[in-house]
Amino acid sequence: MKFSTLLIPTSKETPGDASLASHIYLLRGGFIDSVGDSGLYNFLPLGKKVLDKIRFVVKEELDRAGCQEVALSFVTPESLWRESGRLEKYGRELLRFKDRKENNFVLGPTHEEMMVNLIRRTVKSYKQLPLHLYQINLKFRDEIRPRFGLMRGREFLMKDGYSFHVNREDMQREFAHMEETYKTIFTRLGVDFRVVEADSGAIGGTGSKEFMVLADSGEDTIVICESCEYGANIEAAVAEPKVYDEGVTYISVKMKAHYDEGKSKVIAFVLPEGAELQEVKACKAVGANDLSVSDESAQAPIVVIEQSLGAAVDPHDFDAKEIFYEDISSVKEGDRCVHCGGVLRYTKGIEVGHIFQLGTRYSEALGCHFLDENGKSVPMVMGTYGIGVSRLLAAIIEQNHDERGCIWTRECAPFIVQIIVANMKDEAQKAWGEKLYYEMREKGIEVLFDDRTKRFGSKMRDYELIGIPYAVVMGKNLPEGKVEFITREGMVKEEVGIEDLSLFVEKRVLS
Amino acid sequence: MKFSTLLIPTSKETPGDASLASHIYLLRGGFIDSVGDSGLYNFLPLGKKVLDKIRFVVKEELDRAGCQEVALSFVTPESLWRESGRLEKYGRELLRFKDRKENNFVLGPTHEEMMVNLIRRTVKSYKQLPLHLYQINLKFRDEIRPRFGLMRGREFLMKDGYSFHVNREDMQREFAHMEETYKTIFTRLGVDFRVVEADSGAIGGTGSKEFMVLADSGEDTIVICESCEYGANIEAAVAEPKVYDEGVTYISVKMKAHYDEGKSKVIAFVLPEGAELQEVKACKAVGANDLSVSDESAQAPIVVIEQSLGAAVDPHDFDAKEIFYEDISSVKEGDRCVHCGGVLRYTKGIEVGHIFQLGTRYSEALGCHFLDENGKSVPMVMGTYGIGVSRLLAAIIEQNHDERGCIWTRECAPFIVQIIVANMKDEAQKAWGEKLYYEMREKGIEVLFDDRTKRFGSKMRDYELIGIPYAVVMGKNLPEGKVEFITREGMVKEEVGIEDLSLFVEKRVLS
Repeated sequence: MKFSTLLIPTSKETPGDASLASHIYLLRGGFIDSVGDSGLYNFLPLGKKVLDKIRFVVKEELDRAGCQEVALSFVTPESLWRESGRLEKYGRELLRFKDRKENNFVLGPTHEEMMVNLIRRTVKSYKQLPLHLYQINLKFRDEIRPRFGLMRGREFLMKDGYSFHVNREDMQREFAHMEETYKTIFTRLGVDFRVVEADSGAIGGTGSKEFMVLADSGEDTIVICESCEYGANIEAAVAEPKVYDEGVTYISVKMKAHYDEGKSKVIAFVLPEGAELQEVKACKAVGANDLSVSDESAQAPIVVIEQSLGAAVDPHDFDAKEIFYEDISSVKEGDRCVHCGGVLRYTKGIEVGHIFQLGTRYSEALGCHFLDENGKSVPMVMGTYGIGVSRLLAAIIEQNHDERGCIWTRECAPFIVQIIVANMKDEAQKAWGEKLYYEMREKGIEVLFDDRTKRFGSKMRDYELIGIPYAVVMGKNLPEGKVEFITREGMVKEEVGIEDLSLFVEKRVLS
Repeated sequence: MKFSTLLIPTSKETPGDASLASHIYLLRGGFIDSVGDSGLYNFLPLGKKVLDKIRFVVKEELDRAGCQEVALSFVTPESLWRESGRLEKYGRELLRFKDRKENNFVLGPTHEEMMVNLIRRTVKSYKQLPLHLYQINLKFRDEIRPRFGLMRGREFLMKDGYSFHVNREDMQREFAHMEETYKTIFTRLGVDFRVVEADSGAIGGTGSKEFMVLADSGEDTIVICESCEYGANIEAAVAEPKVYDEGVTYISVKMKAHYDEGKSKVIAFVLPEGAELQEVKACKAVGANDLSVSDESAQAPIVVIEQSLGAAVDPHDFDAKEIFYEDISSVKEGDRCVHCGGVLRYTKGIEVGHIFQLGTRYSEALGCHFLDENGKSVPMVMGTYGIGVSRLLAAIIEQNHDERGCIWTRECAPFIVQIIVANMKDEAQKAWGEKLYYEMREKGIEVLFDDRTKRFGSKMRDYELIGIPYAVVMGKNLPEGKVEFITREGMVKEEVGIEDLSLFVEKRVLS
């Protein structure tokens, strides 16, 4: 396509609230447009193209894996959320509203309830199972502080899949199958990623894995083993237990644990000195929705002791009604791997996929049963699988950029090659540019032709900012029959003879 | 794909609230699923496939016509609606809500404001024009009485396009170009349609055309000429003026006209006896948002006289502050065409497309200006273009069904051919069915293989209900080397030799 006809509003100005490279470059490169600081974004032509590329890969691999695409209503009845017991648990991120008849609805941030409601009405027999449905659809989460552009926006595009099974074994088979499918997807998208063990959070269930795009700017801390494949989100990471002697110094951290219906309890968490309380683990240990700082003088009827302290502390030292032992401390760099004894270290990642062994949490709450081979009614066993489709745009750029702009991976680039005519008033440059443009189009190669009458420097800056994998510059050496071929990664420049150009470009961009 | 693995919850029961064929068959055929009587629908695998087919054709033709796809935020700031002056005009169909920080938002039923807000910030010069952006995205309209399934749902999928021009001539060029593009789209989709003149309604602007799928069940009455190409929505239709003599009997209809901010006026509409007040024309004549029945004894300071009454009535007969003449009556069957004098008659249609010559209504209100060749700041001239993508599913079925179920057009069918094994326990039937299935897949023909262990009669009923264009039945004549080839339209059955089968089917389904 011709640059001059496309809406690509590139800009030199860094938007005030943007700190992450992806946020800055996606805005400055004219991929997205911010709707008034509200965590809402428009996808402009270039951004929409990237989104479609990602969507295409995701859909192709899921269809190949036997999943079926559907599209559920984005607006969902609040009653379903009440039925599942999630209305309160989800908290204020759940955007609720009334329609003109005062009926209550929710803008779906995830669709477990809707999907289970569909399946409980349409699937009755073990003969209809297993079943895996997915959608690639809008979601809304009323973030208190939307930030980092597409990384943590309020309206976003997500692939959410849900599988239904006769038993746990079959669900685990599909879970493993999805882990492989996701690996294929992220490999095709060209990102460097790691699969890590994770906490299941508000979705619920047991056993979940996250797919992390490795990037220094990632919000998540990942613990990885230097010697084996082990990786886990810090929230779920475990290390070889340390052994403490009786004389160990320990600290006690008092926290207020919050439960449904506004209930709360004060809890003392006891840790060896130097260890750090891992709040997600701590929450899980006491079954709370959330923790907040508590007044140190408050009475704590419940005491949770870090399990590694084991026999090293005397439970009688605590004046408590209940005492129990749990893994509540953060793994530290240098700790040892439980699998191989290797050294654990930290890295940063962006969560772009999450797969859950959900079990019967929703099928029981919502009464999603089937008749098994013996005619007995049992709840279906579920798995659920997400990919942050719009977040992937940001994650790809966090991992692939330099100080000049984006560096798109080949499978996700809006175009594969850009033709830059240095001076549109130079008839030869223009003619050779057009010739190559039509040749590339003829061959089905996605090509962007920068035919604007701007200065060369400005066109090059836009090329670097937008980050299409390859470029051909029709420039000052054209009279000698030479043009420049650029690889965006590293901005590697090569001189190519004009006569061999078409074949050369074709070979390089399709290789 | 195999029927046994897909979620296709067909049903024999007609849903209680469904009266239209499309509503009944799309639900019974397992294409869509109703989310608790709320005008919200889930698209199940078959429905999603049809939706994708329609979307593909729409996108391909628009891209070819030089339009650029974007995706604007579904959630839109209320402030933009206030700025355009449409917040009240749109009334309660506009779903408004507050986020957790008490900011006001609207679930977009159409995106003029959002698009203009994007363009006014990114396009500054005549050199960047013309520009035509579109999206295929969710919309929400809080219908007071959602009904007829996808025909008038609350959440729906729409293609909305917006073009920006330096002047009215260029906008009209694009308008004509879009009329042709839309004709290509609807022709490819295989529907029998008519382009008619229309009223512009709440969108505003002058000059608009609707694309009507002709169907007896259509909500819109269309006036068409028996002799020429003239067609118009009854709301906009005109006929050759009648001439009335002075002694004509006339009637006066008093109505309450409603304006912004709750204002209203009583207005008397004067018509020749036997004529019918056309409310949309009447509304337009007095610039009102809406009309309602008024107390006949109320004082009417404004009188609007049907223009055809002309000199036949004496304005002094009315005790009014203002009197004017307008076309306010409905065209009747038998009236004469203004273009050719031919006889006008009524037909029914379903609106699936609407294109508007919008002018500067939004660019002026929202300050969307550009610098012209002389450096002068002028408002852009706009066109806007919609296609009801999810409504098309319903419209296609309203036009293409029989008493047994759906009859999909080839371009929109979820699969092109269905293989029905009459008895899955018959090894020969099953083997030949599978052979054909894999052969078709090999050739890239979209095939649904009914491999369920149900009775033949039940499988045939599902075939008729779902309405895939062709079927092959592996049945009782297989021992004689014969199978049945069915064309869904008319349920035409042909006997085909098993040896020639693959070639025969390929030829027929691809012809």
